[in-house]
Amino acid sequence: MNGTIHGIGVGPGDPELVTLKAVRLARAAAVLAYPAPLEGESLARRIMAPHLDAPPLDRDRIELPIRMPLSTDRFPVNQVYDEAATTIAAHAAAGRDVAILCLGDPFFYGSFMYLFARLAEQAPVEIVPGVTSISAASARLGFPLAARSDVMTVVPALLDDAAIERHLAQAESLAILKLGRHFARIRGLLVRLGLAANARYIERASFDDERILPLDEVDPAGVPYFSLILVHRRGMAWR
Amino acid sequence: MNGTIHGIGVGPGDPELVTLKAVRLARAAAVLAYPAPLEGESLARRIMAPHLDAPPLDRDRIELPIRMPLSTDRFPVNQVYDEAATTIAAHAAAGRDVAILCLGDPFFYGSFMYLFARLAEQAPVEIVPGVTSISAASARLGFPLAARSDVMTVVPALLDDAAIERHLAQAESLAILKLGRHFARIRGLLVRLGLAANARYIERASFDDERILPLDEVDPAGVPYFSLILVHRRGMAWR
Repeated sequence: MNGTIHGIGVGPGDPELVTLKAVRLARAAAVLAYPAPLEGESLARRIMAPHLDAPPLDRDRIELPIRMPLSTDRFPVNQVYDEAATTIAAHAAAGRDVAILCLGDPFFYGSFMYLFARLAEQAPVEIVPGVTSISAASARLGFPLAARSDVMTVVPALLDDAAIERHLAQAESLAILKLGRHFARIRGLLVRLGLAANARYIERASFDDERILPLDEVDPAGVPYFSLILVHRRGMAWR
Repeated sequence: MNGTIHGIGVGPGDPELVTLKAVRLARAAAVLAYPAPLEGESLARRIMAPHLDAPPLDRDRIELPIRMPLSTDRFPVNQVYDEAATTIAAHAAAGRDVAILCLGDPFFYGSFMYLFARLAEQAPVEIVPGVTSISAASARLGFPLAARSDVMTVVPALLDDAAIERHLAQAESLAILKLGRHFARIRGLLVRLGLAANARYIERASFDDERILPLDEVDPAGVPYFSLILVHRRGMAWR
């Protein structure tokens, strides 16, 4: 009798933007897994924490942080995912339900995909969708994503200028994710294309330390990985 | 002392995919507004219903269905939105908090945008993001949306073949929304492009009457508006 493995989206950052289903399954799971840095706290675990600790107190659960080295070398990273997948599959085979917490939505640019690729061959994995950082950013900025017959494209900021410009020419709405060290280049591109006035910037949307800044006031040296720009090609197309 | 107006995403269909924040604000609001057909039940209201009626019973609330004629003529539709916006703004001016329920995410292809455009000029409107139909579809299909440096594009099915083909050529992942009467044409296009094996079809993702079918078993005559296709240009790029 196998346990069930759930990949659970915990939403963009605000613990209140977790779904009822995510709370129920995370509380009920015998094993709680989540990505974490080598030292320190897991963001996904922190978002879910207020719900895990709420009374009535849950029974003991096995905590399984998946501690990932900050490395550009794929080898240690693959090894961590291999080991985590093996451990999780063993818990499920022993009849324990496993909840794997994921920032945002598990199937939308999450590192969960690496686990899923390994687990899906061994055991059924059920996914609980979550609110994405893009929806949270749009809500916090008061800046709609798409309406009517709009086309919306999501691009990671590491794409080169030519690719981003091509997408900007063909979509009414663009979300440029994971700005980090790419910010200055992306801002330059938007200015050059005359789209800076149609763009909005946000960091860590819906987290406690969220920041919204006008594009020209952002210090490129301080732009975090969890930041994004939303652009409307034709301005307020949704009106 | 003005009340607050909240545009609240109730998620894709499953009442458990509502966020804690959506539940709290909908229960607390003095006025509950939602889109509805001319006769019969509001889908958004139905998704929230189990949470509204849960004990402890809420105090009386004013219910404000926004009943929309099925018309391609913009005039009556605009009139309904104008009147609803006026009524909602008047409630807020009288100090009442108003919750406007929206399917999915309010800023992602929702009819809420028409209300927002009218209200935003008169009163502050706060948005509570929700889980989109795309995330729900991806979860239910076990078919990831995007990973790593993938580009993802969302297109409404009413776009012509040339436009959809152009987007398919430039994005690793495509979501084609609101299939309805466009289904046969879209399926033909995917077959012609050799992408049918990389595509997944789902109707009413996460609703009680959800249906998942192989692309070639779908009857084009029965495809509802709330249906979509997810396509991976290169197959399982997320592995």
